[in-house]
Amino acid sequence: MTYRVHVRVIPRTGLLDPQGQAVEHALGALGFAGVREVRIGKAIELGVEAAGPAQAREAARAMCDRLLANPVTEDYEIEVEG
Amino acid sequence: MTYRVHVRVIPRTGLLDPQGQAVEHALGALGFAGVREVRIGKAIELGVEAAGPAQAREAARAMCDRLLANPVTEDYEIEVEG
Repeated sequence: MTYRVHVRVIPRTGLLDPQGQAVEHALGALGFAGVREVRIGKAIELGVEAAGPAQAREAARAMCDRLLANPVTEDYEIEVEG
Repeated sequence: MTYRVHVRVIPRTGLLDPQGQAVEHALGALGFAGVREVRIGKAIELGVEAAGPAQAREAARAMCDRLLANPVTEDYEIEVEG
């Protein structure tokens, strides 16, 4: 069965995130008050052929460790649909 | 109160996503079989000061419409924590 997997890869807390800072300033300039700690990373959606949701999550974790995320600078979260 | 908001901005279905295609091919080359329809967009996390979770979501939606997403080429999803 094919599972729809959502992966969120975000710069680690404490690391500089210039893109997030730029967006935070731009939101303030547009009049959005009370916005803080903006961090910007990658959202990855993929279909994974697997025997079950646990196997799909395990495969996605291996993909993050090998390719999708940088273990030094990024954290990731995995959600499996259905 | 400050709500933690997660926004996912993804290229619309049917639109070309060269970054997603490149990652799909790279995953195949690394030996991950059965991966399909990879799409890559932005994951945005932000703290939003609001009276309640519904107001935080409403504010995030306005930010997506004005700045965070391109309404012609991208779809977005909003999750409010807590």
